[in-house]
Amino acid sequence: MDKSLEQRLRNKIDNLNKPKGSLGRLEELALQIGLIQQTLSPELRHPVHLLFAADHGIEHEGVSVSPRCITWQQMQNFTRGGGGVNMFCRQHGFELRLIDVGVDYDLSAFPAILNRKINPHGTANFLHGPAMTEEQSEKALAVGREQVDEAFGKGCNIISIGEMGIANTSPSSIWMSLLLDLPLEQCVGAGAGLDADGIRHKLDVLRRSVSVMQSANVPADRESYVRYLMRYFGGFEMVATVGAMLRAAERRMVVLVDGFIMSACALVASSLEPSFSDVAIFCHSGDESGHKLMLDSMGAKPLLSLSLRLGEGTGALCAFPIVDSAVRMMNEMGNFEDNKITKYF
Amino acid sequence: MDKSLEQRLRNKIDNLNKPKGSLGRLEELALQIGLIQQTLSPELRHPVHLLFAADHGIEHEGVSVSPRCITWQQMQNFTRGGGGVNMFCRQHGFELRLIDVGVDYDLSAFPAILNRKINPHGTANFLHGPAMTEEQSEKALAVGREQVDEAFGKGCNIISIGEMGIANTSPSSIWMSLLLDLPLEQCVGAGAGLDADGIRHKLDVLRRSVSVMQSANVPADRESYVRYLMRYFGGFEMVATVGAMLRAAERRMVVLVDGFIMSACALVASSLEPSFSDVAIFCHSGDESGHKLMLDSMGAKPLLSLSLRLGEGTGALCAFPIVDSAVRMMNEMGNFEDNKITKYF
Repeated sequence: MDKSLEQRLRNKIDNLNKPKGSLGRLEELALQIGLIQQTLSPELRHPVHLLFAADHGIEHEGVSVSPRCITWQQMQNFTRGGGGVNMFCRQHGFELRLIDVGVDYDLSAFPAILNRKINPHGTANFLHGPAMTEEQSEKALAVGREQVDEAFGKGCNIISIGEMGIANTSPSSIWMSLLLDLPLEQCVGAGAGLDADGIRHKLDVLRRSVSVMQSANVPADRESYVRYLMRYFGGFEMVATVGAMLRAAERRMVVLVDGFIMSACALVASSLEPSFSDVAIFCHSGDESGHKLMLDSMGAKPLLSLSLRLGEGTGALCAFPIVDSAVRMMNEMGNFEDNKITKYF
Repeated sequence: MDKSLEQRLRNKIDNLNKPKGSLGRLEELALQIGLIQQTLSPELRHPVHLLFAADHGIEHEGVSVSPRCITWQQMQNFTRGGGGVNMFCRQHGFELRLIDVGVDYDLSAFPAILNRKINPHGTANFLHGPAMTEEQSEKALAVGREQVDEAFGKGCNIISIGEMGIANTSPSSIWMSLLLDLPLEQCVGAGAGLDADGIRHKLDVLRRSVSVMQSANVPADRESYVRYLMRYFGGFEMVATVGAMLRAAERRMVVLVDGFIMSACALVASSLEPSFSDVAIFCHSGDESGHKLMLDSMGAKPLLSLSLRLGEGTGALCAFPIVDSAVRMMNEMGNFEDNKITKYF
């Protein structure tokens, strides 16, 4: 690590021909990415979007407005290019990787979907016990790491992550509640479109799930506890995401973090490895109840707030051009000296 | 106008394969642009960024942190491609048009800058009387119209507008205060970086300017009054912007509206022609005091809030990819029927 780099980055940013600070959040992003890449002239290379998909046992409790079959149907749809995520990937030049870590359907007829199923039917129902075993959790983490390593090998230095998994706001809300020590009702929202009754039922199911978990032996030390919660409630796609985030942090790759579910994964990742926050760019603050609270708790200031709640990582992709602008600013804007402009600060 | 179009647009948007409403602001944009272009499959063609520049007589009163010479120096810099606006135009494929409507400097050595000077030294000092004559105001409006017509002739259907003119937050604040009937202190801010003393001085100068204006005969009917305020305080670049906005509304072109100064121009444009708001997309809410208030008064919900305060139209350009995503959504996303996905709403 070059200790003087931060000051040199600030000097460079302040001497671009604009009033000091006048490119606001772009200047903060440029500083962050310069520090991640340890350079005054950062670059974004070969952007990759990882989309992990899996089904959730808890879906059987009716906690989601969408039926389970949407998970596999949307995955098929993504292979045809007609999903929201496809549109954004084309627009912003991202390579899209579709990774099945436990979709409750045989997708082998679709070669564009990578088969990394941890379990062919998704996780177990966490109302009655852990969603996955320790071994399954390790496998899911390994799939995330593997995908990041593969992208890195192609020259990628910026990763965006999305998910497809009906009912996955439920585990996200529980992670948030238990890791931040907040009442569950502050962490549970409408997901993709529940009404008030639906939200009450979801809250009830999640409360019961948490008390079942708490009635058994829970690890005492913080790291083991975080890992326990991760596997007890997590979806395979969420644990794979945590694995990808941790690996990207090790490799000093920029990570674009999407909305509520991906923020919950980021919360787990930064609980396990605080340096994850150095590489994370929080892209979108959704309307999901509790999302702002979770972002605040991580000191995250999301770039966008466009009421997106589609998932798939679309909020992360949507913010990419702003991140790109920040990097271009460092490489393309002139400075006061070169341009013989009166420096007025 | 096709009366059934709005319902058909909503149906199309609701049947794209995503939970209803889950692309949030993108769905609103798609509806707006569909209505502007009167089609279910809108397109954005040949985007053009108009950058009008001029100097302001009021600058002599020390109301800005930046010296007058920055206006011409930055215009020269833009011809070399090193400004913030250049970077964004390259990134998002905008044709950049630099139009000098009254920069206090001979820029004839720079053929990339179109000479449309209304007055070679900029506007008069509105502390002592009107910034421009009626004839000059008409000329400035005509330059704006001409630039939009020229872009339209090339196939352009989306215009972004920016400005360069040291001290132009001052006339913007006065327009806002008088048109919205708000106390000046709610409308005056730091501009590009004034300190508290600087803001107090600016407020004092603007208060005195307004009372001088009010001591003379002021037109009684609303439209004449708006036109009077426009020319009494406006910069040439601002009146040219109003002309461009009005013409774009007539031609049903999408207009990307930047920050505080461009929002003030939009306020004047929509005061003169309410249908301007149909074609306007407000792109960025800055930190300039009063900007949110002005946006609220127009019912505008800006797409971004990134603390940009560079001007040049950079906030508008920065939001372009989101507008582009909205249009792509309409043309690229599959729908539930085509994709045999269970419709769950």
